[in-house]
Amino acid sequence: MNEMMKVAIKEAKEGIQKDDGGPFGAVIVKDGKIISSAHNEVLKSSDPTAHAEILAIQKASRVLKRFDLSDCELYTTSKPCPMCLGAIFWARIKKVYYGTSEDEVASIGFDDKRFYEIIRGEKEGLELIQIEHEESLRLLHAWQKKEDKRVY
Amino acid sequence: MNEMMKVAIKEAKEGIQKDDGGPFGAVIVKDGKIISSAHNEVLKSSDPTAHAEILAIQKASRVLKRFDLSDCELYTTSKPCPMCLGAIFWARIKKVYYGTSEDEVASIGFDDKRFYEIIRGEKEGLELIQIEHEESLRLLHAWQKKEDKRVY
Repeated sequence: MNEMMKVAIKEAKEGIQKDDGGPFGAVIVKDGKIISSAHNEVLKSSDPTAHAEILAIQKASRVLKRFDLSDCELYTTSKPCPMCLGAIFWARIKKVYYGTSEDEVASIGFDDKRFYEIIRGEKEGLELIQIEHEESLRLLHAWQKKEDKRVY
Repeated sequence: MNEMMKVAIKEAKEGIQKDDGGPFGAVIVKDGKIISSAHNEVLKSSDPTAHAEILAIQKASRVLKRFDLSDCELYTTSKPCPMCLGAIFWARIKKVYYGTSEDEVASIGFDDKRFYEIIRGEKEGLELIQIEHEESLRLLHAWQKKEDKRVY
């Protein structure tokens, strides 16, 4: 069995056993070495964002002291949900290894698949209302004019 | 000007001034009262997940001591990126007020729009490789069989 996935699965098992959250684990690897590992802690921390991938990315960023993880790969026991996929994009991770599919995760009652369908415009699910456009746009211009800005 | 958006914009301005991150602020509201507010801190914390909406959701969950924020609304100075939208879904927030569009955020150099295009399958951007399917699937079954499981 893949050594990295073994650790991700071990994390997930620990999470189930401790009742920390859903059955999901993730590992971040750089140059063949594990930088961080985590499991879902939504129930433990009452934090809807505490998915395994998010926590693993946050830990890896703390270890490497940078938000750019483009030299890392991620191993996760299930295909990332839209939130985690977004985090992977922002972390500039280019390669993700995963175990189970969206459909399989949906079959045990999680909403990842439905959220993807909402994002693709196939289902409704959120009211998005634009307000205060002009004042908000000024913020973007203020950033654009900032000479010492760092891009991420 | 909308009072909630005023606070979100003030947060964003503070973030620009302090060089904490991008020009984005967010506020979470319940029963007409502000529960939490935050601005982007990606640069300050070297954490790629430290977007205003994510931080505001995390703070609100700490305040209310629950992951379900379905009785809350979110105000954000720019349309949420896929990561933040995913977090909004998981938090069960039903209504989001936003200031600027994906195109406007893209025009000052941020990748939100491109990430949406990758998710919709319109662009390439990530290698997703399935491995260790069987062992990973066992985790989902273990969860399914767990009698005292809490669903989120």
